[in-house]
Formats: sequence, structure tokens, C-alpha cells
Amino acid sequence: MRTVPKEDFMDIREYLIKRRAIVDKELGILIPASDAQPKRIYQSIAHALKGGKRIRPILCLACAEAVGARAKDALKAACAIEMIHTYSLIHDDLPCMDDDDYRRGRPTVHKKFGVAHAVLAGDALLTEAFDVLASSTPSDKRNIRIIKILSRAAGIAGMIAGQSADINTRVKDFAVQEYINIHKTGALIAASCKIGAIAGCAKEKDVQALQKFGEYIGLVFQVTDDIIDSEGSSGLMGKKRAFEYAQELTETAKNLIKHFSKQANHLCLIADFILNRKI
Amino acid sequence: MRTVPKEDFMDIREYLIKRRAIVDKELGILIPASDAQPKRIYQSIAHALKGGKRIRPILCLACAEAVGARAKDALKAACAIEMIHTYSLIHDDLPCMDDDDYRRGRPTVHKKFGVAHAVLAGDALLTEAFDVLASSTPSDKRNIRIIKILSRAAGIAGMIAGQSADINTRVKDFAVQEYINIHKTGALIAASCKIGAIAGCAKEKDVQALQKFGEYIGLVFQVTDDIIDSEGSSGLMGKKRAFEYAQELTETAKNLIKHFSKQANHLCLIADFILNRKI
Repeated sequence: MRTVPKEDFMDIREYLIKRRAIVDKELGILIPASDAQPKRIYQSIAHALKGGKRIRPILCLACAEAVGARAKDALKAACAIEMIHTYSLIHDDLPCMDDDDYRRGRPTVHKKFGVAHAVLAGDALLTEAFDVLASSTPSDKRNIRIIKILSRAAGIAGMIAGQSADINTRVKDFAVQEYINIHKTGALIAASCKIGAIAGCAKEKDVQALQKFGEYIGLVFQVTDDIIDSEGSSGLMGKKRAFEYAQELTETAKNLIKHFSKQANHLCLIADFILNRKI
Repeated sequence: MRTVPKEDFMDIREYLIKRRAIVDKELGILIPASDAQPKRIYQSIAHALKGGKRIRPILCLACAEAVGARAKDALKAACAIEMIHTYSLIHDDLPCMDDDDYRRGRPTVHKKFGVAHAVLAGDALLTEAFDVLASSTPSDKRNIRIIKILSRAAGIAGMIAGQSADINTRVKDFAVQEYINIHKTGALIAASCKIGAIAGCAKEKDVQALQKFGEYIGLVFQVTDDIIDSEGSSGLMGKKRAFEYAQELTETAKNLIKHFSKQANHLCLIADFILNRKI
């Protein structure tokens, strides 16, 4: 098992807080909130962006750092990923989809700004994300590669397929739920890691390793989501087995990058953080 | 005024039919309709794509041809433009927006496939359009430029701003309606022409000329739309004045490219076609 020398890195909570602040600051620059026109769209977007944990963009930054780059080298790509994640939340919450009234502890966009502006705010975030990606690194070649990865993770074969299955299927057995999870959640988490590696100019074998790492972390994320969502103590044995499964997945993920330098330490700690999270 | 030697070109109706067929064939390859999964998404998209006049993608192809390139050099970009146009129609038709039951002579997507899948089909078309653009020409540099142009035409400062104003404003005076038209319709038509020029490897001054040409043609399109939409014979004088204005705009547009070679002939004829169209 990988050992992490304490002196070489920030405490993981400190790391997450600092990276989250960097992402939030850049998002504020990319999407100016206050008085920009059209005002209602900007207000809807600002409302939707508030309060997220930023796990996907932080994974993106940490993967860039894991291959020796600076967090800021992947910052624009990370923000585009959060924009696409947020667009999907806005649209998934719509009355015609999951019909949710609250998200991130606040009223959903359609509750506060109306359904039409919720649709438009999602459309705007999705569209603007690609504008951000088009100049996210100094290399057109890398930017094109990143755009392809993200459009496929978010597109018909990715997030859209997951949401379509979620809506279409009333009774969800294990296989259906796994399909939905992998497409709705896993695809974007794996893409976040791969994109961070590419933005950080990683060698091709490291790009592949971090994509695989992302796929396993995506699974961990889904399993821990299920543990958190299952209420009360009725399913304690099931929860224990699920947690053991998540532990195995986390170890497999960390093993994929065990040959990386100490700059990958935070990434391993994020994996542990996702495994052990309570919210 | 530009003279168009008859022997050098196809009849404009023949040209439009042939270019439309090329676009439709490529769209069928990019978005396979029949049995692909998720089936309901593919069916919704295929339904939405049917029956359009393809004015935007044909303008894109004609602009590539006007600068001496082949139509197929701009074909993928043209299809991406039609995908973005179609996404905007699907979302604009939603019950929360304009609540339309028919589009292109057939039931709207939400009427046939439900509101949730109409939202998703639009999201899918928008996302996949950027995947298509990422490999639309052999040059990463040109593709990035095209992605920026299209994301801005479709984004917060373009089509989204127009639709937001359309929803927000109950009483629409001339200035408000003009703002809505320019953003909802004009931005994408101008972008179509500019993108065709770039995909056709035009010199920078020709790119600028074709963008301007597209801005005027966008205005012509809106004025003729208004003429078509105004019912009966009650406003005959108003219609006559509007048509004269559209004629002036068309002449201005054609003058912008009067120094182009005869390969720009079809583009001028498309301008006349848009001016004189009855549907």
C-alpha cells in the first residue's frame, strides 16, 4: 500500500478547501454574476453554481498535479466540467424529469426562476462550457482532445443515455441502476481525471492510468452515494458489504497510480475522502 | 449589380435540393436513426431533424464554395450548425417556452415523445454538435476557431439572450423585437456564413466579408419572416415597405461579395431566394 509522508502535503481538508476556492474564483470570472445581461440567465446560473462540493473539478486539478503540472494548468477545463455537471443538475431537477424542489440545500433553479429559465440556464452552461474548453490550454490539439472527451462523456452515449434510462425505467433492478450510475455519474468523473491528465501534459500511459483511476473512483462515488442514501439502520449488513466493496475499488484505483511521484499523494487522499464521506 | 452567367451554375432550386440532400445524408451518418441506443433519444432527434429547409447549413456550404473550396470541406460544420438550430427549436417549442404543438408540419418532439425526452433530445443535439465540430476540418486550429464562433452565437450573448428576452418581455416594441430577432436568428445565420468561409480556408478579409454578408442575410431572413407571418391583406402598405427594405439589405449583402469569383454566384442566388421566399 502507498505510504504518504505527512510533511509533503497539505491536510486533505485544507487541500479541498483551497482547490475549491480556486475553482469558485475562476467560475466567478468566467460567468460574471451580478449585473451582466441577460440578467435572469446570469442570476439563474449563479444560483445553480453555488454550494457544490466541486468534486469533479478538484479531481481534474489533482490529476494535473499528479503528473507534475500546476493546478492552474487544468483550471479552465475543471471549470467547464463543473459547468456541465451543473447544467445536468438543473435539467435533471426539472418538473418533467425528477421534479426536485431543493438542490445543494437551496430551491432548485426552476422553483426560483421558473421552468423556462431553468431550461435556458442549463442550455447556457452547456454551451458556454465548450467556449471555455476551446481556450482551456495553450494547445489547440489538447483542447480539441479535451472537447471530444467531454462531449462524449456528456453526450448521447454518456450522461444523456443515463438520464434517458433513468426516466424510461420504472422498476430498476441492479443491472439497470448500474447502467444509469455509470452513465450519469461515472462517465463525467472518469472524464474529469483524464482531462486533468491531458491538461497537465501527461505522458500517454499516465493519461490512461488516470482515466482508469477515474473509472474506479466513479464507482466508489456511486457506492458511497447508495450507502448515504439508504436510510436508517435496517440495512446494516448490506451497508457493511457495500462499504467493503467501495474499499476494494478505492485500493484498486490507488494501485493504478502507485508508481506516480509524491505529487499524486493528494489524489490518493481524495480517493479516501470520497470513500469515507458522509454527505 | 453582379451579373450571373447562366451556364456556370445550376438552377438555384436544383442547387438547394442537391445541397440539402448532402446535408441530410451526412446528418443520417452522424446521428444514426434506427435501432441505436438509447432508442427514444435517437428517435426524438430523428423526428426533430426531419423536414427542415436547411437554410443555415446550405449557407455554410455555399460560403465555402464561394471562396473556392468544395462543399464537403464545410459539411461537418454545416451539420453541426443544423444540429444546434434543431436543438433550439425543440427547446423553444417546450410547454414552458412557446408551447407549440406543431413544427415543420409535424407534432413537436414533446408532443410525440414527452417533455422529458424533448429536453434530453435538445441537450443531446447541442452536446453532439460540439463533438462533430471537434473533427469538422483537418485542422485543430480551424476547428477551435469554429467552436468558439458557434458557442458564442448559440450561447449567453447569442441565441440564449434572444430566447430569454422573448420569454421575459410581454409587450414587444420594435426595438425589443429587433433585439430578439438578431440574437435568436441573426447570430446563427451570420455564424453559418463565417464558419463556411473558415472551413473553406478563406483569406481573412473574405472571412470578414462573408460574416458581414451573413449579418445582412440574417436581417433579410427576419424581415421576410415577418412579411410571411403578417396575415391577410390588411397591412399591404407595410408589407410593401418591408419588402423594399429587405431588397436593399439583399443588395448590400451581395455588394459585399461582388469582387468574389463566379464561384460565389450560388450564394448571391440564395440571398435572392431568401428575399423572395413565401414559406
